[in-house]
Amino acid sequence: MPTQPADLASATASNARSGSADPAAALRLPHIESTADPALEQKLMLRLTPPDHGQHALGRLEELVLQLARIQSARPLPFDLLVFDSPQVVVFAADHGIADEGVSAFPQTKTREHVLHMLQGTALINNLAELHGFDLTVVDAGVASHVTLPENTKPRVPLLVRKIGYGTRNMVLSPAMSVTQAVSALHAGMDVMRHLPGNVVALADVGVGNTSCASQLLSRLCGVPLADACGRDQKPDDNLIQNKLDVLFAAASRHRKATSPLEALAALGGFEVAMMTGAMLQAASERRVVLVDGFVAGAAALVARGLQPNVADYLIYAHRSVEPGHRLMLIHLQAKPLLDMELRVGQGTGALLAWPLLLTAQSLLEQRRANTV
Amino acid sequence: MPTQPADLASATASNARSGSADPAAALRLPHIESTADPALEQKLMLRLTPPDHGQHALGRLEELVLQLARIQSARPLPFDLLVFDSPQVVVFAADHGIADEGVSAFPQTKTREHVLHMLQGTALINNLAELHGFDLTVVDAGVASHVTLPENTKPRVPLLVRKIGYGTRNMVLSPAMSVTQAVSALHAGMDVMRHLPGNVVALADVGVGNTSCASQLLSRLCGVPLADACGRDQKPDDNLIQNKLDVLFAAASRHRKATSPLEALAALGGFEVAMMTGAMLQAASERRVVLVDGFVAGAAALVARGLQPNVADYLIYAHRSVEPGHRLMLIHLQAKPLLDMELRVGQGTGALLAWPLLLTAQSLLEQRRANTV
Repeated sequence: MPTQPADLASATASNARSGSADPAAALRLPHIESTADPALEQKLMLRLTPPDHGQHALGRLEELVLQLARIQSARPLPFDLLVFDSPQVVVFAADHGIADEGVSAFPQTKTREHVLHMLQGTALINNLAELHGFDLTVVDAGVASHVTLPENTKPRVPLLVRKIGYGTRNMVLSPAMSVTQAVSALHAGMDVMRHLPGNVVALADVGVGNTSCASQLLSRLCGVPLADACGRDQKPDDNLIQNKLDVLFAAASRHRKATSPLEALAALGGFEVAMMTGAMLQAASERRVVLVDGFVAGAAALVARGLQPNVADYLIYAHRSVEPGHRLMLIHLQAKPLLDMELRVGQGTGALLAWPLLLTAQSLLEQRRANTV
Repeated sequence: MPTQPADLASATASNARSGSADPAAALRLPHIESTADPALEQKLMLRLTPPDHGQHALGRLEELVLQLARIQSARPLPFDLLVFDSPQVVVFAADHGIADEGVSAFPQTKTREHVLHMLQGTALINNLAELHGFDLTVVDAGVASHVTLPENTKPRVPLLVRKIGYGTRNMVLSPAMSVTQAVSALHAGMDVMRHLPGNVVALADVGVGNTSCASQLLSRLCGVPLADACGRDQKPDDNLIQNKLDVLFAAASRHRKATSPLEALAALGGFEVAMMTGAMLQAASERRVVLVDGFVAGAAALVARGLQPNVADYLIYAHRSVEPGHRLMLIHLQAKPLLDMELRVGQGTGALLAWPLLLTAQSLLEQRRANTV
């Protein structure tokens, strides 16, 4: 008989504090294998290196091919080619109590509007998903209102309603979520992923105020000073930035004891961050290639890595967002993003913009097959 | 009756020194129009900006779309969509007398070997050209030996023999080329471009020792200290770098009076650099989109910009190479490369790796057509 999430969560939180047990097992997180395979790497490097060039002539393209190959190498037959099947892009939407403090340049209603645009097919991510043959799924992880399309309008993409609540609480006044809610969101993310086909998934988010969560998690989990981790939103304005920073300092101070990944996620995170974390862990456990979109998805990666370090083997950082904290975050994740196009759109656009580089990696590996004996 | 290149070149060189006349006209360089079109930009930004996002939400993707649209807007009908037709990649190959000084980690024979690999279809650029539907042309601008395939081997791609000489002279001892040779190479590059179809061209190079030319041209034309402009080649080694720097200083000092773009090109450049410069100018005059591959192609862009400033409107910098001088060069060109994948291959691979971003730009403009009235 399954244990209740609440029991598990509190057990895990105290385990994490005392450092006594495996939090992943207590949280019923899936097992994730490391992908390390030096023999495979050596074989593929031989294949890839062009004639008359030294080792690593392909630079980061070689790294990309090798990472993809390691992810896909666990098959009965020896690894030969990369195969991408039914690529998915999943956008998790949620609202944030901290928006009450005026930390964002946008009103909270923007979250719902962005979701409606995606459902109606008018958002940029719809164009990119169509262009690259990705199936788009929108998940309502906790938008502050009921999301309904106007009458007689059929959604162009599926909306999965996995609402944990109508927005998180204001983290200045209390934890954004209870640990129980955070665990429910993790499990919901795992569940969403389990029901999606394919072996490639791009994970992204929409939610007014969620860069505040990302900054908090970066600061808490990596020890980066909050002022450096703090995003600046679009159309920056000095008063707005100072206010945001004051608010974030107050929240960080209130939750200074929330130091484990799960506790930090609950106190300072958001429903969509927690759900992306769960989806990432599940996807990695199924050996899917995971494209991580931007700053907020990167924060989910930080939490996921804290819960299950092997998840890092499956994550490909697609795009560096304009948020100044994202540069620091990627350094802490020991990652270089594939692209740096200064997009301010979110919603998976950075991930899908980088997708052709994965296709090129796939083709090169196939075209250069003749190089190996 | 056409004037002889030699007369023109000497006339131009003295004109350039006295600053009295238009060197472009004296050199019979083609006219290049500026592409500035604020009305078009405004119209397209409306179309591109996703709903519920601020201006410039697409960051550098927007800049890319606008640049491409400006290049293609000079048609009888109002501009509507981007059209890419018969894309070409042209690799100019040549040898460099300065290789005698041991500035490269490779023997000069590597240039010929790289050319043979391209002709036989076994180089990485062959794979990328096939993948993205580019026609590859190799131009022998001045390889130090006669390039022939083994008997009974048919070339997989065309080789255009436009040899200006069997390698340039050693720039430590004399100018690399005479001004007459430099002008001949410019005109040969223009001629090569005139005979290629299509409206997109990627320009690239192969030539042992040509990063020395690129460093010299960067230093001379932009005032960058030679030590900062100096490449480090593959597999860097401190002795090699110090020797390279000593050699480059000696050459720079000998040709300190070669300050105009043409004089610097002749004294410090190479046949393939000069030919790429001519090809760039011709391509821009025909309003083609020009993808500039790496550090050496960037040096050709510096010279081209010095001869005809409007050429800059047509150049898209595809990839930042690992050469440390390239970062400085791009700053001087006021350009951000689309990719930074740390490739060390050259031969147009960086340009073709970035190509899907142009295809995405094209698709987005088409998909979002409904946004405009």
